[in-house]
Amino acid sequence: MEIVKEEGPITGEQIGEHLSLTRATLRPDLAILTMVGFLGARPRVGYYYTGKTGAEIPLQEIKELKVKEYQSIPVVVGEADSVYDAISAMFLEDVGTLFVVDQSSQLAGVLSRKDLLRASIGKQDLETMPVSIIMTRMPNITVCRKEDFLLEAASLLIERQIDALPVVSEKDNHQYEVVGRVTKTTMTKALVHLVNSERPLGGNRS
Amino acid sequence: MEIVKEEGPITGEQIGEHLSLTRATLRPDLAILTMVGFLGARPRVGYYYTGKTGAEIPLQEIKELKVKEYQSIPVVVGEADSVYDAISAMFLEDVGTLFVVDQSSQLAGVLSRKDLLRASIGKQDLETMPVSIIMTRMPNITVCRKEDFLLEAASLLIERQIDALPVVSEKDNHQYEVVGRVTKTTMTKALVHLVNSERPLGGNRS
Repeated sequence: MEIVKEEGPITGEQIGEHLSLTRATLRPDLAILTMVGFLGARPRVGYYYTGKTGAEIPLQEIKELKVKEYQSIPVVVGEADSVYDAISAMFLEDVGTLFVVDQSSQLAGVLSRKDLLRASIGKQDLETMPVSIIMTRMPNITVCRKEDFLLEAASLLIERQIDALPVVSEKDNHQYEVVGRVTKTTMTKALVHLVNSERPLGGNRS
Repeated sequence: MEIVKEEGPITGEQIGEHLSLTRATLRPDLAILTMVGFLGARPRVGYYYTGKTGAEIPLQEIKELKVKEYQSIPVVVGEADSVYDAISAMFLEDVGTLFVVDQSSQLAGVLSRKDLLRASIGKQDLETMPVSIIMTRMPNITVCRKEDFLLEAASLLIERQIDALPVVSEKDNHQYEVVGRVTKTTMTKALVHLVNSERPLGGNRS
């Protein structure tokens, strides 16, 4: 691979000269290196380096990432809280989405920045208007669970065009306790993290 | 690999028996398959299948993705436009960030939902207040270019805690034309896309 990297495209015969080996001796090794994609081969041109170094991300590992590995802490408000209080909470906690809980701490609604912006340009008094008037309610809330695949949550964010999902723990009769949140920020961090946690393909390479 | 997959852990000698080949003949092939991580090898146990099938995402390819491959269309408002008009544009176009341009169509500022929400809970008249009063201005705007790496843009979104970057084309004396936008939605889509565009490692495997 070193030889091909430096001198490619190079024929099997030429590689053989470098190593004092016959082309026939090298052929099986070159075939495997080509098969796994580390080298490319073109007729009448020779072998060339593909740039694949074995620093690959196993797709299966990414597919199996769980929501719980990346979720962050949810920020909740009560359903009787005012819209003004919700806006304050959003700035204070610097989040894009708030989850609304009922008196027994179960998920009752979701408030996006868009919901709060829409309310704030209306003529109503934000300090007396409860968030329950403007929030998205169950069953129109898309939720996910700790054990769900992160990529499924990412797909939901895209498909439903929403910014965040509450991570819930399900109780009896569709009562949801909010235990986390995953957002497009979560997914952006996951993307950066996956690429930066560079490691070689397989566990046997040094 | 088929043999190891079905019968592993299996010694080199046993594999040789299956193929009517000596262990010495097989050794180089097994060494390469182990090196690239498709097979594992344990002393006194034998070769075993690692589950890596070649469905890997080449890290280098992800690192080399360009902003221009994923950017979307920017939504711009003029710096003399009112905050009310900006909020309307944000709802109409359904974006989280607006870019503000000056009279010569050059980047002058950025407006986030947060900026607009903060303004809308103030006491001012949104219909007469120009966006230039509340926008983030140059040189405090983080920009990127079409040829930048997508992952660099993703890192900037995370580090600077912002939702979107304008993709700019640079003119003389730091004049920027806005040619696109990349957001956390872009990155979430990229993550989903990368995993779903499953393909084998390298271009030479069928």
